[in-house]
Amino acid sequence: MSETTTRVARNGVDVPTLFATLDAVKASPEIAGFQFRARNTWISGTHNRTTIQGFFGAGQEDTTRTEPFTYDADHPAVLVGTGKGPTPVEFLLHAVAACLTAGLANIAAARGITLHRVESTVEGDIDLLGILGLAADVRNGYRQIRVHFEVDGDASAEELAALVERSRRRSAVYDVLTNGTDVVIDVAATPSR
Amino acid sequence: MSETTTRVARNGVDVPTLFATLDAVKASPEIAGFQFRARNTWISGTHNRTTIQGFFGAGQEDTTRTEPFTYDADHPAVLVGTGKGPTPVEFLLHAVAACLTAGLANIAAARGITLHRVESTVEGDIDLLGILGLAADVRNGYRQIRVHFEVDGDASAEELAALVERSRRRSAVYDVLTNGTDVVIDVAATPSR
Repeated sequence: MSETTTRVARNGVDVPTLFATLDAVKASPEIAGFQFRARNTWISGTHNRTTIQGFFGAGQEDTTRTEPFTYDADHPAVLVGTGKGPTPVEFLLHAVAACLTAGLANIAAARGITLHRVESTVEGDIDLLGILGLAADVRNGYRQIRVHFEVDGDASAEELAALVERSRRRSAVYDVLTNGTDVVIDVAATPSR
Repeated sequence: MSETTTRVARNGVDVPTLFATLDAVKASPEIAGFQFRARNTWISGTHNRTTIQGFFGAGQEDTTRTEPFTYDADHPAVLVGTGKGPTPVEFLLHAVAACLTAGLANIAAARGITLHRVESTVEGDIDLLGILGLAADVRNGYRQIRVHFEVDGDASAEELAALVERSRRRSAVYDVLTNGTDVVIDVAATPSR
């Protein structure tokens, strides 16, 4: 590849477009307001299914995702489910790894660092005495989540580690998981008796 | 169905096994310690893939999930990605809807309430000035997440709404999203120069 092509496509990131997008948002900060959405349908027991497709961003409804993404969730047999999907809490582990990895690739490209391999493993410890209502002093959610990254790239070990650190500081999922956010729930009930 | 069958299978939840599981954990609280896991591999740009399969729980490694679950994540075109999966933050919306819905079905079954339909829509508002590094006073993550439930079942509107409220109070994902948790990240870097 020519030097120009390499710069454009580093890590699969279109770097000129990335910088142009940043400039566009600087010029019109209001386009940075996004709304993401999901719709979930209960199937049976702990098995349910979510579809994800449309979102609002950059001042308009997105139309580029022409097919819905569909995900099942369930509890495993040991938790009286049927294992037709991962547990909901496992999707949190996917979300944080995916967010940190996407950011890492963008940041590496912006810094001119070519990546060869990025793998991560995530573990989350949870004591189910909380959600089972058997211990008032045990929280419902994860006590701790650990993310271990392996990063191979054309830079020093310090520069590669700095990519992960910068990605952490800019990660939407990491922010929500560590700092929490406001979650509002409302119900429209249709009684059958 | 006979009364006995109805009780066993209400909402697709094996209620006797659910109560037996609670009794087993009361007798041996240490079996409530679970560890969930995920492994993510970077593909290109903001596109990456997570596999979820094994976990530790009830005192042993689970072997019932014989095939891995695989999920792609990506940024959409407007965010300089290729849209090969939802964004990582959209999986948070899936996780909270799935967790609340699974809990709701269990709680309804335990209370003898037959459900006919449970649907939920989730919206999350996020200002990308944060993750783009363009505004120091804007957080990276969602400013707010809203979950709207529609619940049809054989109970009063108050009883149906109370199912959602109890599920919220016992939800692992709701707890993490609202209260945050500890996330530890480490890096093994392999420099190529």
